Amino acid sequence: MISKNRISEIRKLHLRKFRDESRLFLVEGRKSVEMLLRSELRVVDLYATERFSAGNAALLSDVRITEVTPAEMERISTLSTPPELLAVVEQPGTRPLPEGQPLLVLDRISDPGNLGTIVRTANWFGIRHIVCSPDTVEFYNPKCIQATMGAFCDVQVSRADLVSFLDRQCASRRVLGTFLDGDSVDTFAFQHDDIVVIGSESDGISAPVARCVTHRLTIPRGEGSGSSSESLNAAVAAAIVMHKF
Amino acid sequence: MISKNRISEIRKLHLRKFRDESRLFLVEGRKSVEMLLRSELRVVDLYATERFSAGNAALLSDVRITEVTPAEMERISTLSTPPELLAVVEQPGTRPLPEGQPLLVLDRISDPGNLGTIVRTANWFGIRHIVCSPDTVEFYNPKCIQATMGAFCDVQVSRADLVSFLDRQCASRRVLGTFLDGDSVDTFAFQHDDIVVIGSESDGISAPVARCVTHRLTIPRGEGSGSSSESLNAAVAAAIVMHKF
Repeated sequence: MISKNRISEIRKLHLRKFRDESRLFLVEGRKSVEMLLRSELRVVDLYATERFSAGNAALLSDVRITEVTPAEMERISTLSTPPELLAVVEQPGTRPLPEGQPLLVLDRISDPGNLGTIVRTANWFGIRHIVCSPDTVEFYNPKCIQATMGAFCDVQVSRADLVSFLDRQCASRRVLGTFLDGDSVDTFAFQHDDIVVIGSESDGISAPVARCVTHRLTIPRGEGSGSSSESLNAAVAAAIVMHKF
Repeated sequence: MISKNRISEIRKLHLRKFRDESRLFLVEGRKSVEMLLRSELRVVDLYATERFSAGNAALLSDVRITEVTPAEMERISTLSTPPELLAVVEQPGTRPLPEGQPLLVLDRISDPGNLGTIVRTANWFGIRHIVCSPDTVEFYNPKCIQATMGAFCDVQVSRADLVSFLDRQCASRRVLGTFLDGDSVDTFAFQHDDIVVIGSESDGISAPVARCVTHRLTIPRGEGSGSSSESLNAAVAAAIVMHKF
């Protein structure tokens, strides 16, 4: 049983304002919730459809769950096809960045799907720390969490003023940035503690952040690329650099 | 001036059924339409807001345009923020695939944004021919065309039964496929006329198509990747392979 009041509280978490205030966010769908339950993140509440919880006693044995009807799940979910499982989760506090670990910096990524895909790709390549500019889309946006495909459990995403952050870092570390001109990523000698900066979908890296970049890199076009080819998707560019890195 | 009847005809092109029947599709937004006008695609009609056409006489001088009000543009557009320009365009006929060109094969990609991003990335890397399984999302879906960022002008996307297509090809060419196991793409020696197969977002390459693959490849995880990391986004995996290729 879920009260009307609780439904309305969960629906508030569809909006950033209330996620920011409460420091909570939603995780939806079986796969994402399974990963969540194996992670260190703190689950506040877990909701399952009656049908799901009847058939999955083993999965849910250690967790206090609230059964809801399909209609209730539809109301609390942000998805057009309501999931079987939905969790309300605490946003983890920011931990200090470990020294000498690979680090990705995102400057004004605006699409939640792109941010989620970048986090998912970073996790695949073992990059567990990402610092975003304050105007990057909010990480706890449900579309972003969905696109991480569970990587939200393993990757720490924090926010900082990038200019002062990079100013502090660049005394000891190289700061690489992707541009339409620069050294080819194919021949560049990456180092384990390099910082890689990826810019926004529409305008790339902003001018103040670009001034903090110590090495300009580019992803070369292939022979025979068409004349309409002006840039790569931000998540694709980030993936190619992370793969080389 | 645009008639009510014409508005309703254009709105039908929001739906695949009518795009298939009429062999037409929509291109929306200034950038995409500019690329379209430089391409060999045949534009049937071009609609501009009065405000846009007043300020851009040079751009539109060679083209017959119909001026529409913002309210009319909102009705004919599929975008939540209506564009300044919208074109109705003929779907090009399928040309025979040239010999010895790099070729990408997509098996059951279901998300139009992913397909569009793959086409955009392919164009960047000089891959101008893509063959999709019949159950891959339709290329002329407006979300897909939008995500190509103009690459729909330069890349030929056709559909075929993949098993019979690959059976014919694999006598003379290698067929590479991405799986969770296989040889690392980092050390694999790609050849210019290899065919690369990318599988669906949820299930990878289907079993019948997998049997046509002559070389199994994988994108290795990085050291320290989190336990939630089970796969990469299809557009990201395709980008990493195309970049190596």
